[in-house]
Amino acid sequence: MTGNDPSGSPDTAPVDTLLAANRAFYGAFEALDLGAMTRVWEESERIFCVHPGWQALRGHEAVMESWAVILSNTSRIQFTLTGVEARTSGEVGIVTLHENILSQVGSQRHTASAVSTNLFVLDRELGQWKLFHHHASLTVLPEESEGPVN
Amino acid sequence: MTGNDPSGSPDTAPVDTLLAANRAFYGAFEALDLGAMTRVWEESERIFCVHPGWQALRGHEAVMESWAVILSNTSRIQFTLTGVEARTSGEVGIVTLHENILSQVGSQRHTASAVSTNLFVLDRELGQWKLFHHHASLTVLPEESEGPVN
Repeated sequence: MTGNDPSGSPDTAPVDTLLAANRAFYGAFEALDLGAMTRVWEESERIFCVHPGWQALRGHEAVMESWAVILSNTSRIQFTLTGVEARTSGEVGIVTLHENILSQVGSQRHTASAVSTNLFVLDRELGQWKLFHHHASLTVLPEESEGPVN
Repeated sequence: MTGNDPSGSPDTAPVDTLLAANRAFYGAFEALDLGAMTRVWEESERIFCVHPGWQALRGHEAVMESWAVILSNTSRIQFTLTGVEARTSGEVGIVTLHENILSQVGSQRHTASAVSTNLFVLDRELGQWKLFHHHASLTVLPEESEGPVN
């Protein structure tokens, strides 16, 4: 495990492109854009996704169906990411963070805080990181946070 | 990403030893053995641990303190692991599973179901997998389960 090595050595893909892929994931979520969300994910049967409180979903069809439901039932969602840490090991990128979430479903607004593990794999031919594992779970706000937004 | 390749090729560590390391983690938890739990984990500052509903803990001291508290406050705990999937990519081992938990704190018995992401790194010198990331979150029981144990 090589840690935060931005040098892009042969065995270590750059962390900056990993962070960009992670931002693209939350950008697709905030844009409620299923096409963009689909492009973020690896198109494979091994992909794994845990939405907060949900069971684990495995495989492209199940995961994308869940996103279709979530994105179509959300009026607005906004993420403030804190405690973001990104590491690479060979072709695997590991991003951990807290999601501070403002969302609106119908006319109801919600605030929530979740912790997330996001794993990406580097497709060296395309030069792109693809998400293959997202595990998010609700949590109390980190102590360093200023608390929930009213 | 090479998937389930038990052949132990130069770039792929065997999945069977990864699964043994994963079992050692739950074995240490069931034995309420802090020494064994400490040996399961990588001794580093990058280790990351989310107990169900907790904030993310980072670093050896914080993670081990949490285990000391949990193990000393648990009278008995038993895991039935389902849906275990293990993959390796270079020196990273990725295990996902559902934890079906029977526990006793004081005289109170509890059942719970959690989904967990466990990430290991292979120390090739020692020939051992070390846990560096555990993210567990409570969930409803998978549909294929027979339901909670009464």
